[in-house]
Amino acid sequence: MTKSNDLVLERTLNAPRELVWRAWTDPKLLKQWFAPKPYEISEVEMDLRPGGIFRIRMVGPDGFDTGHGNPGCVLEVVDGEKLVWTSALAPQYRPAEMGEGCESFPMTAVVTLADGGDGKTLYRAVALHRNEADRNVHEQMGFDDGWGKCAEQLEELAQGLAANA
Amino acid sequence: MTKSNDLVLERTLNAPRELVWRAWTDPKLLKQWFAPKPYEISEVEMDLRPGGIFRIRMVGPDGFDTGHGNPGCVLEVVDGEKLVWTSALAPQYRPAEMGEGCESFPMTAVVTLADGGDGKTLYRAVALHRNEADRNVHEQMGFDDGWGKCAEQLEELAQGLAANA
Repeated sequence: MTKSNDLVLERTLNAPRELVWRAWTDPKLLKQWFAPKPYEISEVEMDLRPGGIFRIRMVGPDGFDTGHGNPGCVLEVVDGEKLVWTSALAPQYRPAEMGEGCESFPMTAVVTLADGGDGKTLYRAVALHRNEADRNVHEQMGFDDGWGKCAEQLEELAQGLAANA
Repeated sequence: MTKSNDLVLERTLNAPRELVWRAWTDPKLLKQWFAPKPYEISEVEMDLRPGGIFRIRMVGPDGFDTGHGNPGCVLEVVDGEKLVWTSALAPQYRPAEMGEGCESFPMTAVVTLADGGDGKTLYRAVALHRNEADRNVHEQMGFDDGWGKCAEQLEELAQGLAANA
């Protein structure tokens, strides 16, 4: 239950909070930034209410599969501020079977957004794990680089939305 | 994901819905009916909001321990109508370590109450499991008898609350 079970990414994104939220919660937009390139998101299903589905399938170059896109479960949605989902549960809160690769251990993601002033967003993503072993596996999969690169892609996409607004 | 992964208890309780809800959600009252006698609840912690703790420790005759009371997580609370919690997550949605005995597999409990007319309550408790194997283990632990006996104890306690109201 300690902090040592968590992985944390914090960034100040140079884009307004409502656009970062939109890029996070619109499946078509999420698809464009949620995988660190050259990985790609091949499938997204999200029903943003407690008990709803949260399912993302990622594929690597040459079709390398990082898992089969096990369906996870949305837990909390605070519009423009907070999104929580978990892979420990399937939709409608049923305990989930674990999968392969990146899906071999359960995790809960807690994403929070706050105004950073000057049209910026304080972006925080925390991955909660069962124990330190799972945390370490996730870290060795490249959490910091992967989520860091995705945060840059997210920022760029949200900036593009601002330009087109 | 099929019905075959679930265990379902349905009863019409001869007590009003608000008292059944109170017996379910007041830790002091829950303690009196939630274990099929001669089992007893030795410890209860509940914080009835999403992300809050739901922890119950049960002991049998001669101090036989059915588990260590792993802390679970509340998922949904609709006052007087619905309570959902899971042992797949610890409080604040962290994926849970599994425990021993009755706590060796994850489950989600969905409890719903509806008015049954004439001061009665339609009571439904569903246990959701990962797969059929877990469901069968839970069934063999005595789900039907155990939860059935508890429902009788719940009814009796709620009736006592009515008499004292």
